Amino acid sequence: MKTKEMLKAHPAEPLIDSQLLADCINACFECSQCCTSCADACLSHEVTDDLRDCIRACFDCADISSVTGLVLSRLTEATSDMIKTQVEACLAACRECAAECEKHADSHQHCAICAESCRGCEQACIAVLDAVGTVV
Amino acid sequence: MKTKEMLKAHPAEPLIDSQLLADCINACFECSQCCTSCADACLSHEVTDDLRDCIRACFDCADISSVTGLVLSRLTEATSDMIKTQVEACLAACRECAAECEKHADSHQHCAICAESCRGCEQACIAVLDAVGTVV
Amino acid sequence: MKTKEMLKAHPAEPLIDSQLLADCINACFECSQCCTSCADACLSHEVTDDLRDCIRACFDCADISSVTGLVLSRLTEATSDMIKTQVEACLAACRECAAECEKHADSHQHCAICAESCRGCEQACIAVLDAVGTVV
Amino acid sequence: MKTKEMLKAHPAEPLIDSQLLADCINACFECSQCCTSCADACLSHEVTDDLRDCIRACFDCADISSVTGLVLSRLTEATSDMIKTQVEACLAACRECAAECEKHADSHQHCAICAESCRGCEQACIAVLDAVGTVV
Repeated sequence: MKTKEMLKAHPAEPLIDSQLLADCINACFECSQCCTSCADACLSHEVTDDLRDCIRACFDCADISSVTGLVLSRLTEATSDMIKTQVEACLAACRECAAECEKHADSHQHCAICAESCRGCEQACIAVLDAVGTVV
Repeated sequence: MKTKEMLKAHPAEPLIDSQLLADCINACFECSQCCTSCADACLSHEVTDDLRDCIRACFDCADISSVTGLVLSRLTEATSDMIKTQVEACLAACRECAAECEKHADSHQHCAICAESCRGCEQACIAVLDAVGTVV
Repeated sequence: MKTKEMLKAHPAEPLIDSQLLADCINACFECSQCCTSCADACLSHEVTDDLRDCIRACFDCADISSVTGLVLSRLTEATSDMIKTQVEACLAACRECAAECEKHADSHQHCAICAESCRGCEQACIAVLDAVGTVV
Repeated sequence: MKTKEMLKAHPAEPLIDSQLLADCINACFECSQCCTSCADACLSHEVTDDLRDCIRACFDCADISSVTGLVLSRLTEATSDMIKTQVEACLAACRECAAECEKHADSHQHCAICAESCRGCEQACIAVLDAVGTVV
């Protein structure tokens, strides 16, 4: 990912620390890839009720984290309410998806990796929200 | 849009009124299309600072409303925190984008139509959040 | 959907007939919603190998048709190779997804509706490609 | 990105070399981030006709590469026509966007980085299409 370089080359200075912002953007894209891949992998097993919840959480989290990565890539001018709430939605999605995947982490390696990625994205979202809070 | 028919054909009963849910899903997709189209139309004019803010708001709102429409299309089992927060993000996005577009509604017809669509989506999100509130 | 109004309010004239373009954009968004909903509905049943293929086709088609609707909403200046190929990808996705859903149309009403929507989008893509062909 | 690990943990063996597939998925996500960031950076300058084309190419390429990354993340069972055409659309998008960004690479560092990312994604798409060609 060239996120950090892109933020540096942008004419506007981001309102929050650019390393912290780049980390969150990258975490969002990684999380979206892992969740998409994990849902597909889950689908290859026999789909029990428990795994059904996992697949659904993965799909929602993939969509939400992907869009959050895009929105944050445009966080150049102001920290608006819209961006803040979208990061909160991403935080909630990562938390729920991680909790689902952790239930299957022992039996499915893809759930273990996906949960780890969701937890990383959750932390990165918290860091961005904290930084935004000190600015606004 | 065949949203209402699809919800009816789904084996699970949505937790909130299906007409209200279908209305919100359709409003999200319409809003995403209008915002994408409006940003592109704005770009065809001479881009002043004011229009710059409008283009950015349109792009964020297009991405956020589109993903909210997808997430709501999977609102079949439970009303989770993740879905609720995503609808709140959509509500914030529609509100901000409408406010930007309304500034140019007199000079640009595409901004007037886009603002109307954002306001419609804002109302539909409020209705879904109210309904979810009575369930959870 | 306010697609037709938005195209009319755009400062640039689309290179192909605007009714035909609006029809295709709307068909893309409808298809994306149906496929997302159908995948979720399929997941509620006992997932056999046959339904697994259907879920996967629905997810790919949902993503591809959604992005095609957005790209076509920006078809204002020129009909580029990029847009043409994206519509071809959408055509292929709709065709494959319709074929999968048609296998289950008798047992699942959501597959029947989704197949109908995919076929409609397939036809709209063909009409756009034909019109683009006469321009380029 | 944990793409390689996720492909390894997936129960199904990808039909093409998994390193090559992971490289292309990662290139798609990187390209989507760069294009989104570059469009936003371009918008911060005075928007001339030339930059207008660049912004539009960036937005199309961002959307198309992002969805291609998701679709390829599900390339587990078969190399379908739908996936092949989507990679071709991504190849066309990367090629056009790189050509636009290269025009401004001397004056804007963000265009130089974005062009480099698009060219990388273009090569990764060619490699996947070559590999798919030997399988189908």
